[in-house]
Amino acid sequence: MAKKVLILIADGTEEMEFTIAYDTLVRAGIECTSALVSASSSATHATCSRGVKIVPDTIFNPSESGPEKYDALIVPGGAQGAKTISETAAVQELVRAYHEKPGRIVGSLAALTSADGGDTIGEQELTSHPSIKDQLKEKFAYSDEPVVVSKSGKLITSRGPGTAFPFAFKLVELLAGAGKRDETIGPMVFPAGTPLKF
Amino acid sequence: MAKKVLILIADGTEEMEFTIAYDTLVRAGIECTSALVSASSSATHATCSRGVKIVPDTIFNPSESGPEKYDALIVPGGAQGAKTISETAAVQELVRAYHEKPGRIVGSLAALTSADGGDTIGEQELTSHPSIKDQLKEKFAYSDEPVVVSKSGKLITSRGPGTAFPFAFKLVELLAGAGKRDETIGPMVFPAGTPLKF
Repeated sequence: MAKKVLILIADGTEEMEFTIAYDTLVRAGIECTSALVSASSSATHATCSRGVKIVPDTIFNPSESGPEKYDALIVPGGAQGAKTISETAAVQELVRAYHEKPGRIVGSLAALTSADGGDTIGEQELTSHPSIKDQLKEKFAYSDEPVVVSKSGKLITSRGPGTAFPFAFKLVELLAGAGKRDETIGPMVFPAGTPLKF
Repeated sequence: MAKKVLILIADGTEEMEFTIAYDTLVRAGIECTSALVSASSSATHATCSRGVKIVPDTIFNPSESGPEKYDALIVPGGAQGAKTISETAAVQELVRAYHEKPGRIVGSLAALTSADGGDTIGEQELTSHPSIKDQLKEKFAYSDEPVVVSKSGKLITSRGPGTAFPFAFKLVELLAGAGKRDETIGPMVFPAGTPLKF
């Protein structure tokens, strides 16, 4: 059965990070659902960090977003979008629920910030956009690697648009295997020597 | 004065190629306008190749899309989207107009196909997604390089999602200079050794 992933989006989400994750996972046969996190109940799309406007598959509903329904929860970066998403109490509860359920993972690109829900994710190994390294390095086991899988195997983090492809391929590897990852890379035509696997 | 770029989008456009070009150009201070090419006059967004739905900045209007208004015209890939865009007669006329006006360029990612408007662009040097190489190699001076700038300097082509960043950085270099390109690359946090300049 195809794996299922929930990708959150909000005004200010980094549109390349969102789109690269979503598209790459779909190419790998993983079912993606994007859910809009917004204070406005009438919002129809997210205006992303550089102005691209994306219509979500659904509006974020905590009771339909849990680890009994999806294999992974993804939070893209983009400072303002990550802030909106990670400061939503229901998202913090979800991050905790995905951590508690065996076999489920949480992926965060560039800006976990307070998506840890205070003490939700503990002192795990992680990375982030370099601009928020100073906020995180005291509390977490901070790494400068492009993609970091924590020792628990539950948390996958990355740094920015430039690491969004390696991040997406790591998610494919974890959800569908290294064979599927390599099969997905081929038709995307990366220049020879592009580092994609971490 | 900031350079201006028009990026066309349609149902089936490759969403990573569209988004990487748009976002990277905006990061470089270039004004981007996306225009939806659709047979339906009531369409409000494009459903892209892997299901991401994007709201355009405007609906494609040939009389507002010419080289007197924009410095570059960009056609992203995605087989179905590129087909819709490139088979639109008004787009073929625009491609010709951008070729004729000094200082203007046309960028095409992955799937120029008939966007050449028959004999519009002549036998220029180009590349494409490998899947359509056979269709193009007889007619054009085909290259397997990740990004190709034709000898006329008017046509910039690339191969797929994996070459979308190098393609975008080449456009930044041509429109805003190598200094701006390098300034834009930094905060995007590519893994060391990623080939980005061609």
